[in-house]
Amino acid sequence: MSDTNALEVLIQSLRCLPGVGVKSAQRMAFHLLQHNRAGAETLARALNEATHSIQHCALCHTFTQAEVCATCLDERRDTSKLCVVETPADQSAVERTGAYKGLYFVLMGKLSPLDGIGPKDIGLKKLFDRALDGTVHEVILATNFTAEGEATAHVIAEGLKGRGLQLTRLARGVPVGSELEYVDLGTIAHALVDRR
Amino acid sequence: MSDTNALEVLIQSLRCLPGVGVKSAQRMAFHLLQHNRAGAETLARALNEATHSIQHCALCHTFTQAEVCATCLDERRDTSKLCVVETPADQSAVERTGAYKGLYFVLMGKLSPLDGIGPKDIGLKKLFDRALDGTVHEVILATNFTAEGEATAHVIAEGLKGRGLQLTRLARGVPVGSELEYVDLGTIAHALVDRR
Repeated sequence: MSDTNALEVLIQSLRCLPGVGVKSAQRMAFHLLQHNRAGAETLARALNEATHSIQHCALCHTFTQAEVCATCLDERRDTSKLCVVETPADQSAVERTGAYKGLYFVLMGKLSPLDGIGPKDIGLKKLFDRALDGTVHEVILATNFTAEGEATAHVIAEGLKGRGLQLTRLARGVPVGSELEYVDLGTIAHALVDRR
Repeated sequence: MSDTNALEVLIQSLRCLPGVGVKSAQRMAFHLLQHNRAGAETLARALNEATHSIQHCALCHTFTQAEVCATCLDERRDTSKLCVVETPADQSAVERTGAYKGLYFVLMGKLSPLDGIGPKDIGLKKLFDRALDGTVHEVILATNFTAEGEATAHVIAEGLKGRGLQLTRLARGVPVGSELEYVDLGTIAHALVDRR
């Protein structure tokens, strides 16, 4: 296969996708070339379009093609609440609950000192400016309940403490529909402490 | 995220990759946009280049950018032997052994009636023409030792029977370096039958 240079370049390029090693990349390249060249061309166009047109929302930092995203522009939203999430996927999960009508700030990551990701890399400065711009009264910390997510919430809480903002964190507890017998002990302990 | 049309198009387009569902596609899209836009652009270029320049070798049916691939053009190869494999990855595995100096025919698939893949879809006609072009004396069936691979080998053997060709199949047996205790019984049974 020494003359199939374009094929090897394609296999190498596919490895930039997260979770794709050399075997998966080979399988993907063969599949696209053999069964779905139209899909490959569509993907190429979508990649070009996305890298050239998608930027970060000036207010909430999520991905958008406009200066400010549709959620931030929506006038029916409660501008006094700001929900801080790690990724657009997390934002979308909160949004799908239908239980929240405020605005968001999307960190696009989390503090992770082991991976060299510090406060500057996840735009904490931008978050602090946004939270202190006068319109926000409550900041809801909805980072994940992992070690990094908790650390991120802690750093944000420290940074915003004593600035007249109400700081809240998503409730920790037993998931809906679960039986205590099968819930992990740390979760039950937290649910006991936070009982109401 | 209703205004991020390019993002949703990208997520949908990534799902054309085998083994990528909606969650993986989201993760890939976010990763590329957040951490590796250069990689995304390289991938788009590689996809375009590959879909436009890669075709099938006129002789062995593998992927190549030329009319005939480098392996088929290599004059040091034994043109009397033709090794039939399912995919370019299989061909590359045989090639890396260094134990084979003949030519190849790459089916680019296998018979799989359940998936609607019949003899026409894997170019058996082209293989028969190639095997009967007068230069080939031995056809080595190196399809995989799966149900579909065995069926494919059987159909090819039936099609070429009685045409003056020597038809061989890769030996089945105990893998190098393995202990009998841990080898599956079907393999040991085959190794017993094919003992020499």
